[in-house]
Amino acid sequence: MTPEALDALVEGVARGDRRSLAKAITLVESTRADHRVFAQDVLERLLPRTGKGARIGITGVPGVGKSTFIETFGLFLVERGHRVAVLAVDPTSSLSGGSILGDKTRMPELAVSEGAFIRPSPARGSLGGVAAHTREALLLCEAAGYDVVLVETVGVGQSEYVVASMVDFFLLLLLPGGGDELQGIKRGILELADGVAVNKADGESRSLAGRTVAEYQGALHLMRGGGTGWEPPVIEVSALERRGVDTVWAMIEKHHAELGARGDLERKRADQRHHWFKGLLDAGVRAHFLDRRDVVLALVQAERDIDAQRITPTAAALRVLALLDR
Amino acid sequence: MTPEALDALVEGVARGDRRSLAKAITLVESTRADHRVFAQDVLERLLPRTGKGARIGITGVPGVGKSTFIETFGLFLVERGHRVAVLAVDPTSSLSGGSILGDKTRMPELAVSEGAFIRPSPARGSLGGVAAHTREALLLCEAAGYDVVLVETVGVGQSEYVVASMVDFFLLLLLPGGGDELQGIKRGILELADGVAVNKADGESRSLAGRTVAEYQGALHLMRGGGTGWEPPVIEVSALERRGVDTVWAMIEKHHAELGARGDLERKRADQRHHWFKGLLDAGVRAHFLDRRDVVLALVQAERDIDAQRITPTAAALRVLALLDR
Repeated sequence: MTPEALDALVEGVARGDRRSLAKAITLVESTRADHRVFAQDVLERLLPRTGKGARIGITGVPGVGKSTFIETFGLFLVERGHRVAVLAVDPTSSLSGGSILGDKTRMPELAVSEGAFIRPSPARGSLGGVAAHTREALLLCEAAGYDVVLVETVGVGQSEYVVASMVDFFLLLLLPGGGDELQGIKRGILELADGVAVNKADGESRSLAGRTVAEYQGALHLMRGGGTGWEPPVIEVSALERRGVDTVWAMIEKHHAELGARGDLERKRADQRHHWFKGLLDAGVRAHFLDRRDVVLALVQAERDIDAQRITPTAAALRVLALLDR
Repeated sequence: MTPEALDALVEGVARGDRRSLAKAITLVESTRADHRVFAQDVLERLLPRTGKGARIGITGVPGVGKSTFIETFGLFLVERGHRVAVLAVDPTSSLSGGSILGDKTRMPELAVSEGAFIRPSPARGSLGGVAAHTREALLLCEAAGYDVVLVETVGVGQSEYVVASMVDFFLLLLLPGGGDELQGIKRGILELADGVAVNKADGESRSLAGRTVAEYQGALHLMRGGGTGWEPPVIEVSALERRGVDTVWAMIEKHHAELGARGDLERKRADQRHHWFKGLLDAGVRAHFLDRRDVVLALVQAERDIDAQRITPTAAALRVLALLDR
């Protein structure tokens, strides 16, 4: 890319041009070495324009109505004058060629809305790689003037943790019903939530949804113990009947205001940047050492000896680390 | 140490001699390079004798009655013919010179019992160091014939995670009362528990304890979602009145039997050994690189640039990692 083309790209994103934004995200997702240099240059120049969006993560098991929720919620926000970007972290998309959000027909109205920008999950690489690209796509969306960025995850592997580590507010969608097979939420996920919405609170399920709300309110209260600060609300929503999304938004705005007033929002984001940096650094250092042929062989032998309980993990680690000075 | 002295030490531990066990633990805790070599030799020779104990972690906020519980529970087990070792992970003990368990008067009866062995938290080093020493002390206790090993933590920092990562069963002690200031349990801890005991279920608090049990049963059920496998029971206990410790033991035995029958117990321990090894390895590799003077300077500059948002964490990490090849 010529310097002029890069200038034009930066300018295009800054002015909110959708094609420039899409092109910049593609650049960020590229694995070509020269593209990575260009991408970081573009990001560096756009960084001063970032940080003004509300960053919202959304998770829930398949069948909870995530697509319908995002469609309804997104349209509600667009109607109120917001510009809404929708991203996704789906580590399975590299297998399926984009399983979630690949098809914009999942959110037909939002997809054609002038105020919305929908981007499927980056399809390449590990969860860490997908996450890094999504983090940078999020910054580009903010730079392009999208003041609400929704990051969706299907909840495969550790993807909820990864999404929670890049957003201000993490929303868990649940179905009406107890903590049974229907919910299928993994251990640890409820802990991540800044708010819970019980979706499909419509028709015959409405009274069940009310009971579910009460149950989870109790559980979350106990889980947080005596902690001060934000206590995650639990509310009911019917994305289908377009009911409750205003309450979801009010909850997120309240959270934003409370954290902002205490300086906690900026602190949270600074921590997230710090962890992102540390994670990349650790992975890089590990890869540099652990990809060495002699180290790989030593690792295999060490794991065998540990499994057979011929050696303690401490002794095994010391043995492999002795190779560092060679 | 002479080879003969090492032989005698290994033999002493194997025959259950308390002084040999204490000496071997001291060796494991030593930071002297030659001691570390001896310690790993001793451990390696004793490894075939390990693995037969029930490894139980115990946590709870100050005031929950941990000492009384361990005293009552330990004596109950000794009376039934078990040999009980009590260890602790207390990262604050390096400051206070041993704040928990340093004083055996906390458990006066258990401390003088023939069937029990009480060892304070290693007082030196970081949480990681304390944990490594405690893991190895646990193996030595098993080799010495202690078939129940209790690992206590006061819950400072990440110490609950560390203890949970070395035991088969993690027991959370709570007070009668709701999820209010009284409990003071940290976010994430309830998720770690394999069982919960509401202590001090005596006198006027007894009916409150019953309500607390019901509340936490509901919360834990919801938290686990539709997961199969072990669902953590919640029971009430009065360590003071020596009531309920039999139920605690029955719960732990049931857990042990269920996990053992599915092969999950051996899998859990193998995973723990693997993570212990990986953790030491990662820490060693990181230290080797990150302690270099040029890298430290680059890190400081990188953190500054990230904080000022002059650069993305990705670009900052790439810049520091470029030093690896120099």
